[in-house]
Amino acid sequence: MMSLTHEQCIKACLECMEACNVCFDACLQETDVKMMADCIRLDRECADICAFAAQAMQSNSPFAKQICQLCADICEACGNECKKHDHDHCQKCAEVCYKCAEECRKMAS
Amino acid sequence: MMSLTHEQCIKACLECMEACNVCFDACLQETDVKMMADCIRLDRECADICAFAAQAMQSNSPFAKQICQLCADICEACGNECKKHDHDHCQKCAEVCYKCAEECRKMAS
Amino acid sequence: MMSLTHEQCIKACLECMEACNVCFDACLQETDVKMMADCIRLDRECADICAFAAQAMQSNSPFAKQICQLCADICEACGNECKKHDHDHCQKCAEVCYKCAEECRKMAS
Amino acid sequence: MMSLTHEQCIKACLECMEACNVCFDACLQETDVKMMADCIRLDRECADICAFAAQAMQSNSPFAKQICQLCADICEACGNECKKHDHDHCQKCAEVCYKCAEECRKMAS
Repeated sequence: MMSLTHEQCIKACLECMEACNVCFDACLQETDVKMMADCIRLDRECADICAFAAQAMQSNSPFAKQICQLCADICEACGNECKKHDHDHCQKCAEVCYKCAEECRKMAS
Repeated sequence: MMSLTHEQCIKACLECMEACNVCFDACLQETDVKMMADCIRLDRECADICAFAAQAMQSNSPFAKQICQLCADICEACGNECKKHDHDHCQKCAEVCYKCAEECRKMAS
Repeated sequence: MMSLTHEQCIKACLECMEACNVCFDACLQETDVKMMADCIRLDRECADICAFAAQAMQSNSPFAKQICQLCADICEACGNECKKHDHDHCQKCAEVCYKCAEECRKMAS
Repeated sequence: MMSLTHEQCIKACLECMEACNVCFDACLQETDVKMMADCIRLDRECADICAFAAQAMQSNSPFAKQICQLCADICEACGNECKKHDHDHCQKCAEVCYKCAEECRKMAS
C-alpha cells in the first residue's frame, strides 16, 4: 500500500512530466526558438527525471527519497527558467514544476 | 491542444506504467519468485514503453503512432503473462494492460 | 552469450545515442536555433529509443527485434533531418544514425 | 569538446548499464530466483540511472554532477548486493558497478 505522501508525489511528478513535454513541444514551435533554448533543455531533463521518480516510487525503490531530492532540484531550476517567459505553456509549466518540487521535498524529508 | 484520443491513451499508459511497477515490486516479494520471472521481466519492459509512449504523445512526436503500436504489443504480452497468476496485483495489472493495449491500438490506427 | 549481431547493434545504438545527445546540445547553442527545431526534437527521440533498444538487447528482451525495427525508423528520420544541416555535429550525427538504422534492421530481420 | 573525466565517466556508465542488464536477465534465469530478488531490483535501477547519467553528460546537462552523485550511490548499493552472490554475472557486475561509482564520484566532485 502506498502512503498518501507517495500518491501525491507520484501525481505531481506525472503532471510535471506532462507540462514539461507540452512546453518542450510548444517552445520548439515558437517564433523565437533561440530565446527558449534553456527552457527546451530543462523541459527535457525535468520530464525525464519526473518519469524516473514516479517509477521509483511506484516500484518501491530503496532510492525513492534520493531520486525525489534530485527531482526537486531539477523541477525548481526548470520552474525558474519557465517563469521568465510570458508564453502560457511556460507560465503553466513553471507553476506545475514548483508544485512538484514541493511534493518531492516532502517525500525526500 | 490534445485530442480526446491522445488524452485517453496518455491516461491509459500512465495507469499501466503504475500497475506494472506495483506488480514488479510485489512479484519480487512473493514466496515463489521463480514462478514470477516472466512477469517481472515483462512488467519492467511494459512500464518503460508506457512511459516512453506517454512522453511521445505529450511532446507531439512524429512517431507517436508507431510507438503506441509497439506499446500495444508489449502491453498485450504483459497482460497475457499476468493473467496466468492468481495474485491480486497480477490480475489487476492484466486488466490495466489490456485496457492500455486497446487505447494504444486506437491511437495507432 | 550475445551473438555478434547483438553486440554490433548495441554498439551502434550507444554510438547513436551519444551523437544525438551531442547534436541536441550543439543545436541548442547555434545562432539560428529555429532552423534546428526539428533536429532538436528528433535528436531527443532518437537518443531515447537508442537507449531503450540497447537495454532491451542487453537484457534479452522478447521484444528486442520489434524495438530495433522502430529504432531503425526513428534513426533514419533523424539522419534525414540532420543531413540537411551543414554543421559538423549534424553531419556526424546523420552518419551515425544511418549506421545504427542499418544495424537495427539486421537485428530486426 | 568533452573532457577526459566526462569521457571516462560516460564509458563507465555504459559498461555498468550493460553489466546490470545482463545480470538482470541472468538472475531471472537462475534456479533460486528468490535469493536474487534484491539483485534484480537494484540491477534495474542501476541500469536506468546509468543510462540517465550518460545521457546527461553527453548532452551537457547543468545537472550532470548531481546526477552522477546519485548514480554513484546506486552503483555502490548494486555492487554491494551483487558481491554477495557467487554467480559469475553477479561478481562481474559488482566489479563494474564499483568502477562506475568511482568514476561518477570523480565527475561529481
